[in-house]
Amino acid sequence: MKIGQQQFRTIWAAPVASIHQRQVNIIDQTALPHALRIVTLDSVDGMVNAIKTMQVRGAPLIGAAAAYGMALACQAGLTDGHLQMAASRLLASRPTAVNLRWAVERMMNILHTLPVAQRCEAAWQEASRIADEDVKINRAIGQYGLTLLQTLAAGRTERLNILTHCNAGWLATVDWGTALAPVYAAFDTGLDVHVWVDETRPRNQGASLTAWELQQHGVPYTVICDNAGGHLMQQGRVDCVIVGADRVSRCGDVCNKIGTYLKALAAYDNQVPFYAAVPTPTIDWRIANGLREIPIEERATEEVTQISGITSAGNIETIRLVPEGSMAANPAFDITPARLVTGIITEYGCYAPAALEAVLSLANAKELVDETFI
Amino acid sequence: MKIGQQQFRTIWAAPVASIHQRQVNIIDQTALPHALRIVTLDSVDGMVNAIKTMQVRGAPLIGAAAAYGMALACQAGLTDGHLQMAASRLLASRPTAVNLRWAVERMMNILHTLPVAQRCEAAWQEASRIADEDVKINRAIGQYGLTLLQTLAAGRTERLNILTHCNAGWLATVDWGTALAPVYAAFDTGLDVHVWVDETRPRNQGASLTAWELQQHGVPYTVICDNAGGHLMQQGRVDCVIVGADRVSRCGDVCNKIGTYLKALAAYDNQVPFYAAVPTPTIDWRIANGLREIPIEERATEEVTQISGITSAGNIETIRLVPEGSMAANPAFDITPARLVTGIITEYGCYAPAALEAVLSLANAKELVDETFI
Repeated sequence: MKIGQQQFRTIWAAPVASIHQRQVNIIDQTALPHALRIVTLDSVDGMVNAIKTMQVRGAPLIGAAAAYGMALACQAGLTDGHLQMAASRLLASRPTAVNLRWAVERMMNILHTLPVAQRCEAAWQEASRIADEDVKINRAIGQYGLTLLQTLAAGRTERLNILTHCNAGWLATVDWGTALAPVYAAFDTGLDVHVWVDETRPRNQGASLTAWELQQHGVPYTVICDNAGGHLMQQGRVDCVIVGADRVSRCGDVCNKIGTYLKALAAYDNQVPFYAAVPTPTIDWRIANGLREIPIEERATEEVTQISGITSAGNIETIRLVPEGSMAANPAFDITPARLVTGIITEYGCYAPAALEAVLSLANAKELVDETFI
Repeated sequence: MKIGQQQFRTIWAAPVASIHQRQVNIIDQTALPHALRIVTLDSVDGMVNAIKTMQVRGAPLIGAAAAYGMALACQAGLTDGHLQMAASRLLASRPTAVNLRWAVERMMNILHTLPVAQRCEAAWQEASRIADEDVKINRAIGQYGLTLLQTLAAGRTERLNILTHCNAGWLATVDWGTALAPVYAAFDTGLDVHVWVDETRPRNQGASLTAWELQQHGVPYTVICDNAGGHLMQQGRVDCVIVGADRVSRCGDVCNKIGTYLKALAAYDNQVPFYAAVPTPTIDWRIANGLREIPIEERATEEVTQISGITSAGNIETIRLVPEGSMAANPAFDITPARLVTGIITEYGCYAPAALEAVLSLANAKELVDETFI
């Protein structure tokens, strides 16, 4: 999508002279919304660090980043042992992200079968293919979501209010986004949409990333505290909720940024439709019960006790919010049970949680998404 | 309660030479948790400002502050017109706070009936009486809440985990607190309690005030983001929720800091008991349906877009969290429908919302609370 007037992806291979010294560029999302900083990575170490520190984040983007990480790893060594070690380190960088596992396994499955001499070139090609596929998938999610939004908007004169939590916009993917893909599609077709942006503590991905990318694209939005969404729904000021997901169980349990469950409860209590927009690689078919089977990452407590922003003098500053010596806890995700989910918007269409397994057969017919929307 | 080793109230009349130049001391709650600052007020203007800027906040404390504000007003003029103007300005300083109206009306009812010459002394006496009554009421709430906690703790070996939202501790009252009065009572009797403290955006009264006062008293606590409570309840790590309230309808709808409704939904969904601890002046008997009848204060959007804290260098700094030019919205309260409330803990006992009206007759027999717990 656009930043100012320039078209960007969140990750791309930098053009270089030698095929064995390629680099990957990323948008450093820890610098947003106060600065646009492009970071160049030339090693799997750099990519592991970028994933760990959330310079790249969002399930689909983490998948593409891991794929490019494997390509970077190939430039330092091509033996099975070397690649396996790189894969392990990438897998450990964000344990909850199923796309990461999916992408690393896809890369490894190809690389293992190839002679060593062909691995490097194949890795770059496959990483690029994963990135391109993500863009196609998200565009398809956007089109299916658009249909839902058009149905909700049919016959009304007021603008359509969509609430989202965290950032599942184009910054969370290679392009388009998942939760925001329908919003961008709707806005681009002239639908009068407005987005309630949960600030999304900790890390404030809503206030910093979702707000920033919507602003860059010109979509009307309002930042709210995470506490406000329930009240807005009680007041009839939210027409639908769309979130992304880090993982979805095959029954439709949604593992997403902490606090998603609270919004789903409020949506259910106020008959507001609640959608998770996810590419099928985010669906973990091995998981039946999300609450019992998905481990929840505990992140550093400093994400709760401290916060960063920009001073009136223009300096980035980190401040402490709690009394010195306070204990804090920071579970990073929660599970929204399928019973609270109206539908899962995938690149193959929108499915009620109970019907989600029908996607599995479609997902095995890989061409379908391309035929439909490209 | 204690700050360090010294016993404090949140508001008290300063000892002075002349009865007509009395002053009121408050703990400036906007400076906490990073500094303990006592502010001296000598006019109703000062008190209106202290209430507006939330140097004093919390429904019961606002009531006492308004009463002392009327006493300060008496020092500048004693005519009906002067007092009525002071009352109007106090009433406008926080429109949602029913205690404020209750206290101002109580002061006015007394002052109007008195000859002008007796008004000043009577105002100081009545303000002091309101403050003392608040302390007694909260102590009683603590004792009734203690019984509930002892029941929950009976037979278990693990510590009891109580989640609270915002600050309804002693800082929100003259002393003891409402939601935290049972916690202090339990802790003081040796019950093994631990408090999950919602940071409570915006304004972060949990992270700054609740954490600070629990720390000063030695009660174990853990600060969490507002998003985390639902997940903790799903995991069985919350045994009960206790919140305060700014206003309660006669049917038991609870108007409290924005986000309370989301915690009540999660508590209900996970069979965790959800209590609001409120002195009876907080119950607005004129209100039947909280959702329809209680106006929700919209506060400045800077509370959402900016945040203050302390830098590693020890400076208080305000930082912006959103992209420049972002729209924001800041509804300050929400309504938790009575159907989600297990009980209302008052100074007369704990009542199911449906039985709340029974309190009205008790509240009319003013002596009861004194006899029971003093």
